Amino acid sequence: MIEIDDPADPRLDDFRDLSTADRRPDRPGGRGLVIAEGVVVVERLLASPFPVRGFLGVRRRIEALGDLPAPAYVASADVMAEVVGFHLNRGVLAAADRAVQPSAFDIASTARTLAVLEGVGDHENLGSIFRNAAALGVDGVLLGPGCSDPLYRRSVRVSMGHVLRVPFAPLDPWPGGLDVLRSRGFRVVALTPREGSVGLADAGLRGSRVAVLLGSEGPGLTEEAITSADVAVRIPMAPGVDSLNVATAAAVVFYAIT
Amino acid sequence: MIEIDDPADPRLDDFRDLSTADRRPDRPGGRGLVIAEGVVVVERLLASPFPVRGFLGVRRRIEALGDLPAPAYVASADVMAEVVGFHLNRGVLAAADRAVQPSAFDIASTARTLAVLEGVGDHENLGSIFRNAAALGVDGVLLGPGCSDPLYRRSVRVSMGHVLRVPFAPLDPWPGGLDVLRSRGFRVVALTPREGSVGLADAGLRGSRVAVLLGSEGPGLTEEAITSADVAVRIPMAPGVDSLNVATAAAVVFYAIT
Repeated sequence: MIEIDDPADPRLDDFRDLSTADRRPDRPGGRGLVIAEGVVVVERLLASPFPVRGFLGVRRRIEALGDLPAPAYVASADVMAEVVGFHLNRGVLAAADRAVQPSAFDIASTARTLAVLEGVGDHENLGSIFRNAAALGVDGVLLGPGCSDPLYRRSVRVSMGHVLRVPFAPLDPWPGGLDVLRSRGFRVVALTPREGSVGLADAGLRGSRVAVLLGSEGPGLTEEAITSADVAVRIPMAPGVDSLNVATAAAVVFYAIT
Repeated sequence: MIEIDDPADPRLDDFRDLSTADRRPDRPGGRGLVIAEGVVVVERLLASPFPVRGFLGVRRRIEALGDLPAPAYVASADVMAEVVGFHLNRGVLAAADRAVQPSAFDIASTARTLAVLEGVGDHENLGSIFRNAAALGVDGVLLGPGCSDPLYRRSVRVSMGHVLRVPFAPLDPWPGGLDVLRSRGFRVVALTPREGSVGLADAGLRGSRVAVLLGSEGPGLTEEAITSADVAVRIPMAPGVDSLNVATAAAVVFYAIT
């Protein structure tokens, strides 16, 4: 445990200007670090394969974490705010490197239920989908085109750290990768409110290996994705209601099939 | 359609300082107005029993609404921002008075499925619960102690206007009102992850009149609420996962019982 009073101390560089540090290295200012905020998410990081580089927190929060595998810097809330660039209302942070992730087909080889996302660009929806996947027993998340980076700080936080726990990978090629899933025994199911889709409870999905295709909140799945699926299902909805939030819809489907 | 250039024009007073105007009249600065933001929510307001007092928007958005039952003030985005006190990214607003709401027992007399909330103080969760209730065929929302006001602006927005459509009322006395629901033929079901609760799919809820008790995100339902229910149910969850967001859990339960 190392006390630091000077916000310019270079040992805190992993935590400097957090609003860009979590960007992937190919983006401006991005260093590709994985940032965990708050005790619950930091503990989930510690239980994950992501290699932790260090911790920064107020004394009370750092002490609550017990023995730590990397340097733990203790600072005041004011010093922390100056380093990270904004006021944090959680008193502890950890920074980690990205772990090597399995490929989509590695994930599929052992999974029973997969979520496959297309165009889910909103970091909160993405994080919520991981949280719901973890809670409801989904084994992995595959990312089609147009999805954000699940390791972006806000997704990590909204997921309650479950992006560090539920394996994910890009699904490439698109939509051809769906055929590969099918050849491995998955039923590929598109969730869409369009006419002709089958009610979720009537699609006979329990007991199958299922890959659920979920689109972005506004436009939903592309025509290409829907026609690549084995079946289109919908959540029966009251007339005059547009739709559920995509993460909420995902939770309903995950519940119904797992 | 009335063009207004002067942000101080008293005809815009319903839209002035929106971050307090939506508070109930018993709160500081509160005028108890119901504020709808954006075309979709304004249209839902127009279809509701809430009496509209007026509209404020940029020309394009006001025109898109067609014939309107109250004065429509057209202003620039800058004038709008000055009136409401912050930058709006939706180009139209409507203000309405609160409608007389039915009582809890009026709502219960015709409902088949009810949500009963205890301690849901977060406006976003509250709004999301109404959105999910509307989508999944829940007939009303009853508010136990500790709930926020569903007509607070942020709840209206997050609900996509469904707080204007799904009837709600305080349930009083608490928890004695639950006995009244029971005497009217409802099974009172507490959602709680605690040990001993029955898996949602095993509780035999389909086909019954059900009142689902939902607690706040952190602490969940009180002991008092749980013991007042006929049965405690849980959503089966993967080990090591704390919980779903309360609005998401609500959606899963609504789906499972409606």
